[in-house]
Amino acid sequence: MGEPGANSDIRPGEIPIVLPAKFNASLFFIGVIRTPWKNRAECPRRGDLVEGPICRIEIDPVWEDGLSDIGEHEHLQILYWMHLARRDLLQQSPKSDGNTLGTFALRSPVRPNPISSSIVRLLEVQSTTLLVRGLDCVDGTPLIDIKPEHCPHSP
Amino acid sequence: MGEPGANSDIRPGEIPIVLPAKFNASLFFIGVIRTPWKNRAECPRRGDLVEGPICRIEIDPVWEDGLSDIGEHEHLQILYWMHLARRDLLQQSPKSDGNTLGTFALRSPVRPNPISSSIVRLLEVQSTTLLVRGLDCVDGTPLIDIKPEHCPHSP
Repeated sequence: MGEPGANSDIRPGEIPIVLPAKFNASLFFIGVIRTPWKNRAECPRRGDLVEGPICRIEIDPVWEDGLSDIGEHEHLQILYWMHLARRDLLQQSPKSDGNTLGTFALRSPVRPNPISSSIVRLLEVQSTTLLVRGLDCVDGTPLIDIKPEHCPHSP
Repeated sequence: MGEPGANSDIRPGEIPIVLPAKFNASLFFIGVIRTPWKNRAECPRRGDLVEGPICRIEIDPVWEDGLSDIGEHEHLQILYWMHLARRDLLQQSPKSDGNTLGTFALRSPVRPNPISSSIVRLLEVQSTTLLVRGLDCVDGTPLIDIKPEHCPHSP
């Protein structure tokens, strides 16, 4: 894994802040996400539950018992760690035109805690690997959590 | 803050695992959530975007610039840290009857990375405090992230 933020350049209007000196909690990476996209430029802006490519969510075998009964859910919420994103921008310029928006008004991967959340459609469970549609992240993204998603999603 | 997991008892059929020795990433708590519920027993099972009580999301002023433009969104996704939940159960018995389900097939706060995700309705922005409906967590829950939510939610 490269330096955090190595792939996140600063755009006009964006000013980094000094982050707090201490963290408050820690995470386990429970697996890895395999997608066709090798870098952020290749990724779609948003995953597609129907037309998107089949991606693999590979869970570390240590967590295998937690996957019982997961096949009963058509939709899952996936939380993952945007390991390439910098964390120190509170104003961002999505169009690179100098006009900025607050980070919490954007779903950009660049944020103090670079956790993304996506809804996926579960196609198949193969032991500790899930085959899904609907992801939009780069190949090799660390997995944080899987939850059943009960809300209706169209189509 | 008490011991992690101090409030999470083991129920019949639940067997704790030994968690990995090392963490992989760390989080900042960016604020705190104020609700009417003083312990988990008081919390509703699921927040209500319409009838639920007005709750306060208090963001630490260090992150203030990230809140620009947030008032333009009716719905927000809130990520928060379930600081009272144990992290070492991969099989859980929601009905306490000894019948277990896998943790990743449940939205229980007890999970390896105890992050919860809720959709809320934004009512008002008061400086670095957001007034919202739709939360279901205990008073004092640490805030991790705020994102705009574009999906339609009924009602």
